Amino acid sequence: MALTHYPVVNKNGDTIASAVTSLDIHDISRAAKTYGVSLFYVVTPLEDQIALINRIVSHWTTGAGSLYNELRKQALDLIRIEDSLESVKRHIAGFGHGTPKMVVTCARYFDESIDYDRMKAGLKTGAPYLLVFGTAWGLAESLLRSADYILEPIGKNSDYNHLSVRSAVAIILDRLLGGR
Amino acid sequence: MALTHYPVVNKNGDTIASAVTSLDIHDISRAAKTYGVSLFYVVTPLEDQIALINRIVSHWTTGAGSLYNELRKQALDLIRIEDSLESVKRHIAGFGHGTPKMVVTCARYFDESIDYDRMKAGLKTGAPYLLVFGTAWGLAESLLRSADYILEPIGKNSDYNHLSVRSAVAIILDRLLGGR
Repeated sequence: MALTHYPVVNKNGDTIASAVTSLDIHDISRAAKTYGVSLFYVVTPLEDQIALINRIVSHWTTGAGSLYNELRKQALDLIRIEDSLESVKRHIAGFGHGTPKMVVTCARYFDESIDYDRMKAGLKTGAPYLLVFGTAWGLAESLLRSADYILEPIGKNSDYNHLSVRSAVAIILDRLLGGR
Repeated sequence: MALTHYPVVNKNGDTIASAVTSLDIHDISRAAKTYGVSLFYVVTPLEDQIALINRIVSHWTTGAGSLYNELRKQALDLIRIEDSLESVKRHIAGFGHGTPKMVVTCARYFDESIDYDRMKAGLKTGAPYLLVFGTAWGLAESLLRSADYILEPIGKNSDYNHLSVRSAVAIILDRLLGGR
């Protein structure tokens, strides 16, 4: 799975590169570890942000934090930093099972959105999948349109569907990989 | 539902009153709103922490934040601050449907833990329920033992079950109230 900081939109719908939120990295890596996700890619094209993520991750994986909290280390060990989703796909393809299908997440419903049961069936084939979450106000339209699949929104039946990306990741991993 | 900062345990298992995390309040109120929770009680006995929560909540519900982000206002409007879980129960009883059954959450499994299907059936009766989440390293043993129900852990089948409380709340609300 990937958490991407570009291309995403701001409140006005402009495409931006968002800033990294430390707690996203912690919460999402812990959820990824709980549900057996293979790798958690944190994606940003901004060099200073890459340096920041590196500092956070290395503190917990090799620095003082790794001695303080072994469980946090296990979660953050899943993280790999990449500068684009194209780089992520190439890295996954490097494992020799082909280019991954890219599945994007969005709080809106699209005619082509696929439901959780269909997605679970896809995952069970063993083919590589890349599940992409956006920061800020969500993934840019261009990225949504270039994906292989758009996963249906979580709050399909709710009037209010404004979860944090941390909450959305937790719920979606539970629905897809929670064994229920 | 309630997020409580006392009585919880620290890393060493000592019972403490934990500090409030601003992002807990935001993420959990948004999840509560998404899933139609009636009220989100934030519980702490510490006066300075009550003042802090009041500042955060009022910024978004009546202050500058309420104009900037109406959706955030709708979520934080669900919050009610109480100094103990006993006060929460009394407040719920004040609605005239009886004292709520207290359901606690824990990352450990107990012989008496109840599963999600049984809990869902209970919720459907219309009787009042209070779902309690702990901060820090989890709810104190004394509180767990005094509850009406202990909900089974999320990661029952995972070797790694160390989610943030923000992630745990999101998943549990989805399992109980997501209509699946």
